Amino acid sequence: MSLRITISDAAGHAGETVEIAGWLYNLRKSGKIVFPILRDGSGIMQCVALKSLLPEEVFEELKHLTQESSLIVRGKLRAEVRAPGGYELDVEGVTILQKVSETEPYPITPKDHGIEFLMDHRHLWLRSQRQHAIIRVRHEIIKAVRDYFDSHGFTLVDTPIFTPAACEGTTNLFEVNYFEDDKAYLTQSGQLYSEATAMAFGKVYCFGPTFRAEKSKTRRHLTEFWMVEPEMAFADLEEIKRVAEEMILFIVGRVLENKREELKVLERDISKLEMIQGPFIRMSYDDAVKNLQANGSEIVWGGDLGGGDETILTKQFDKPIMVDRFPTAIKAFYMQPDPEREEVALGVDVLAPEGYGEIIGGGQRIHDPDLLLRRIEEHGLPKEAFDWYLDLRKYGTVPHGGFGMGIERCVAWICGLEHIRETIAFPRLLNRLRP
Amino acid sequence: MSLRITISDAAGHAGETVEIAGWLYNLRKSGKIVFPILRDGSGIMQCVALKSLLPEEVFEELKHLTQESSLIVRGKLRAEVRAPGGYELDVEGVTILQKVSETEPYPITPKDHGIEFLMDHRHLWLRSQRQHAIIRVRHEIIKAVRDYFDSHGFTLVDTPIFTPAACEGTTNLFEVNYFEDDKAYLTQSGQLYSEATAMAFGKVYCFGPTFRAEKSKTRRHLTEFWMVEPEMAFADLEEIKRVAEEMILFIVGRVLENKREELKVLERDISKLEMIQGPFIRMSYDDAVKNLQANGSEIVWGGDLGGGDETILTKQFDKPIMVDRFPTAIKAFYMQPDPEREEVALGVDVLAPEGYGEIIGGGQRIHDPDLLLRRIEEHGLPKEAFDWYLDLRKYGTVPHGGFGMGIERCVAWICGLEHIRETIAFPRLLNRLRP
Repeated sequence: MSLRITISDAAGHAGETVEIAGWLYNLRKSGKIVFPILRDGSGIMQCVALKSLLPEEVFEELKHLTQESSLIVRGKLRAEVRAPGGYELDVEGVTILQKVSETEPYPITPKDHGIEFLMDHRHLWLRSQRQHAIIRVRHEIIKAVRDYFDSHGFTLVDTPIFTPAACEGTTNLFEVNYFEDDKAYLTQSGQLYSEATAMAFGKVYCFGPTFRAEKSKTRRHLTEFWMVEPEMAFADLEEIKRVAEEMILFIVGRVLENKREELKVLERDISKLEMIQGPFIRMSYDDAVKNLQANGSEIVWGGDLGGGDETILTKQFDKPIMVDRFPTAIKAFYMQPDPEREEVALGVDVLAPEGYGEIIGGGQRIHDPDLLLRRIEEHGLPKEAFDWYLDLRKYGTVPHGGFGMGIERCVAWICGLEHIRETIAFPRLLNRLRP
Repeated sequence: MSLRITISDAAGHAGETVEIAGWLYNLRKSGKIVFPILRDGSGIMQCVALKSLLPEEVFEELKHLTQESSLIVRGKLRAEVRAPGGYELDVEGVTILQKVSETEPYPITPKDHGIEFLMDHRHLWLRSQRQHAIIRVRHEIIKAVRDYFDSHGFTLVDTPIFTPAACEGTTNLFEVNYFEDDKAYLTQSGQLYSEATAMAFGKVYCFGPTFRAEKSKTRRHLTEFWMVEPEMAFADLEEIKRVAEEMILFIVGRVLENKREELKVLERDISKLEMIQGPFIRMSYDDAVKNLQANGSEIVWGGDLGGGDETILTKQFDKPIMVDRFPTAIKAFYMQPDPEREEVALGVDVLAPEGYGEIIGGGQRIHDPDLLLRRIEEHGLPKEAFDWYLDLRKYGTVPHGGFGMGIERCVAWICGLEHIRETIAFPRLLNRLRP
């Protein structure tokens, strides 16, 4: 029996007779020779099957094999500089596990399919090289995020998905029937809980799915998306910005180091990623508004940046922009006002270049108990629901803050994708809950 | 200004004057000297404050400081073999950020509190050394799991939380109001989706929260828990068992390597963990039933192992037990029957020693399209809901399988905890949705 290897391990076995188990990705024929292209999930390999060297029925079977049929190929690995992975396999034997029916062939073909068709066949579409590349870059980004925090003194403390009260209104919350007619709501952010764990562990992060029941059908919104949220005790706005920048540089560096092949498959302009160096552009909200007005936006001081505004800003620079000190009035109740200028809050948004816009939002949280209580009242929020949150300001309160980064938006930017729906294996949208 | 360090970094700064920001964990007094014990989330450090060396008001302030007050301490680090972390700090200056009120002191004191009181104060309870130790071991386990799969050719492909159809009955599913009167259900397992991604990537894992609306109030059940689920194309039952064993050995090794201090805080019998070596005990369901009957259980062939049965089995061995080939009739519709003996299925449960019981369940999935369709019909399941799942058997089906490991059960075992509620930061139980 030959040694079973994966295509990604071919380099260690040149000259050996091995077997590879996988699926038929493509097939070229040329008279007395066929070239089955095999995929096994770890890579793609061209095989060479000569009629003269194989039993006739094996050769004929190979010649008429259909796309995505499953098979095991045995043969000798040969270095071949022109081959994609640097190796080819000279076929000595084949076991077909399943030949896909000719009358009901694999539905995704090299021809163009509409997006709804592809989304309906997402369970199969994931087998394509482009989707492979995206999911692999996503994996690298997630690993980089975790490695960054794990190696910088942060403790992973995942926050709950089920939350009890609809603290900030139920408009964008998904409601769950809990037991005995109780209601739970799916988390929109772990931040409030992470503030508690930051007081216990100093520096923490949570990283899990979050949910927003927004009725928006844009290329930037999912109803279910993953978010990483670091939170730090004794951190001010400058420290939060420093960590956000360092983390992004770490992620981009890792992707450039380990996922260049995937970026090529995606036809990503790698030079744009290579330009991501520190320090990022730092800009106050005040200056952002002036910049936008000079560039034709109708924004007035006090309004939030729209998607169009983010595009105008980010197309001017080759690196991310950190916009800080937004009007307090448009920010969440817990955001720390600037002590020297209370109408702006110590928050920051990080906008990715090339028009991608916001990937991070964060800032300092209010640590003064009286101010926090006042803000809760001003926002008309139920004080009881925040009893535990107020406890954090009663028992050794300290300045603190953090941020959240949406993984899918980060993947879209780094991969250079137009729509967020390809950044996750099974996207959930306003009108899409399956497969 | 002195250099700000964390307690965990003290070793690099012996002899230097530094500052540490944290909370008062405890305070010992002895006339003209007070010993504030500081915690900063990274560790605990005893400080030494001499009346003769400090301004009187500073010394008095320190002397009357209350538990969990926040402060910044400046002083010189001194190696001290008797100190917990090996260092003490000779106080030269103190800034109190917030003194916790004497009339409303920190509610968790060294005296015994009831479990409901502690659970109600979970946001503060997490500051205690024991909870710290558990969360840190949990972090190490999660990191070990990911490192294991990342370094063994698995691609991370997270599966959706929102699932469309209540495939296997709605009894244990949480229902969510999606848009326009649509219903979604929170995932119980990513397996079916991971089968799709395994056909795309060969070896995959998903790792996220899962949900079970079980009305059980046991020490082993949470309504929201984290699960890692690897899935492998071209894997048979033996390969699945091999990977499960290797992963567990990897996890236990990492915890023993990096988290001994935490295990000591938990008073864990470390020798029990050191006995976790391969190969694990392998036992068929048939033999497990005979063993149990001989040991007083009332189990008969065909029944599932109860919690009591798992305890009887696992107390007999020092290492995990892999029980395989359960009766097909009590297993899920997708489980592959043994071709040589159809009344048993090619599934495996891994039981943790010391009475902990099941931490892993898995096995081979049916890859034959006709058999799978027949099983779906026999189980009275709606075929339409499984159209995409059946596609995986139509387009290049291959033998495949995997397993799921519940993180909280693994943490409970490794930490030696009696109840699962302490294994996660904010546990969700039948009767517990807050804080």
